[in-house]
Amino acid sequence: MSQTLIAYVNGDFIPLQNATIHIEDRGFQFADGIYEVIACFGGTFLDLQAHLNRLQRSCEAVRIPLPCALSEIATLVLQTYERNPYSDAMVYIQITRGVAPRSHLPQGELKPTLIITSRQLPKPTDAKLASGVHAITLKDIRWKHCEIKSIALLASVLGKQEAALQQADEAFWLDEEDHILEGCATNVLAIIHGALVTHPLDHQVLGGITRDMAIRAACEHSLTVEERAWKLGETGLTEIMMSSTTNAVMPICFINHQAVADGEPGVLTMQIRKWMIEAMDTLRRE
Amino acid sequence: MSQTLIAYVNGDFIPLQNATIHIEDRGFQFADGIYEVIACFGGTFLDLQAHLNRLQRSCEAVRIPLPCALSEIATLVLQTYERNPYSDAMVYIQITRGVAPRSHLPQGELKPTLIITSRQLPKPTDAKLASGVHAITLKDIRWKHCEIKSIALLASVLGKQEAALQQADEAFWLDEEDHILEGCATNVLAIIHGALVTHPLDHQVLGGITRDMAIRAACEHSLTVEERAWKLGETGLTEIMMSSTTNAVMPICFINHQAVADGEPGVLTMQIRKWMIEAMDTLRRE
Repeated sequence: MSQTLIAYVNGDFIPLQNATIHIEDRGFQFADGIYEVIACFGGTFLDLQAHLNRLQRSCEAVRIPLPCALSEIATLVLQTYERNPYSDAMVYIQITRGVAPRSHLPQGELKPTLIITSRQLPKPTDAKLASGVHAITLKDIRWKHCEIKSIALLASVLGKQEAALQQADEAFWLDEEDHILEGCATNVLAIIHGALVTHPLDHQVLGGITRDMAIRAACEHSLTVEERAWKLGETGLTEIMMSSTTNAVMPICFINHQAVADGEPGVLTMQIRKWMIEAMDTLRRE
Repeated sequence: MSQTLIAYVNGDFIPLQNATIHIEDRGFQFADGIYEVIACFGGTFLDLQAHLNRLQRSCEAVRIPLPCALSEIATLVLQTYERNPYSDAMVYIQITRGVAPRSHLPQGELKPTLIITSRQLPKPTDAKLASGVHAITLKDIRWKHCEIKSIALLASVLGKQEAALQQADEAFWLDEEDHILEGCATNVLAIIHGALVTHPLDHQVLGGITRDMAIRAACEHSLTVEERAWKLGETGLTEIMMSSTTNAVMPICFINHQAVADGEPGVLTMQIRKWMIEAMDTLRRE
């Protein structure tokens, strides 16, 4: 793919290779910003409005004004997608508070920074789907507002690094009582006594849009859904899966180098994945 | 001051106004970086080696390789200072993991980003020294590695914002038992029964170089120093001060809109400040 990639940066579409922001952008110096990642399949954006609504909530939570109306951002997302060569794409939106001489307290009225990129959607390989994901657990070291989709992601980077050092794919954060909260870049769900169980939304968990989609798929097919704190080793726990924009749900086959049940992708996990993909296909045909 | 400010960015000295980094710099998208702020008075850097040593420790803690030897960074700091018009300056160093297509897990060998700027050293006004600082307290919402001087500073930005909304200058973080940990951009020290008391260094507190300097000044003048957890409202608490690179120590006269003791700058606080400034002056003459 030799076509030049294009990025949107503060009003302009420019070659990604030349896309820069000022070194005193508060996103660069203070992690003072928020983001979204949206999947697009052949021109159909998955839950675009839900992502835009969350973008707005994130901005409100950190008191960054929206750089423009949500409808304009939607147009820019589409335009960025169209200027790039990928049919199945991962569109990334980032908003920061803007550029100012470095000082913790934002001074005066700043112009928020808006960048949008569109890159190829990474998809799980058949081999990974067959073998399942290996995860580790780590004590939660993150801040206390994980419900905000902020760019202050260093803890998650370190978690991913630790997972990689242990030859695992993802790390799941544990609260003080060892409940599984979420992953570094995923939500985590389990099948316990046949029900789909996942941690309730609070300050420790991002309200994942794919998490919602998995819950919706389960509900529509009469699976019981329980939003409650849960742990590894609970009696009746037979499957674990993780959800994210780029992966729908993926089966977790090993946690901390121990097999989950028989170490094979869970039957209900793969069923929920199938329902989700069917729902996406229906959306594409509409 | 109409002289063009100069920044160092990855090997080049360029006008600050044109100083940019790529939008896929991991510092911008993941807060995947660390920083230092060093004060310089008329060409004398305050504790430069201590800052450089901490820079190295921060890099090690997040597994970012140093972009070059510490001695080279020291040279670049001096050159950046010299190319800018400020005699008393605040030199800012930031290192990030580098540029890569966005993915939580750093892929392959990246070239770390190094930027250095030199801006005018902000100094407390006589009026502020006379009236003292107003602080508020907030429950700690930060991550669990505050001993690392990382750029994942959004929690501190929100703390400073909340302080400003309450017409205060700084916010101090409280642990679960209401011990005072540190401020958003400062360490906090108190005088209790005549001793200088400050929270011990652990994962909740940055090892401030100016905090060290205050402790050193107190020790050299035979003041008792206690590194222990402490609270507002302890019997014998007569003064509170905060320390930072740009402020030495500053008296805190109001906390949560209530006067500390008689609401005047503390006598020992101002004495320690004087000792610190004398120590700096001695350094400059050497």
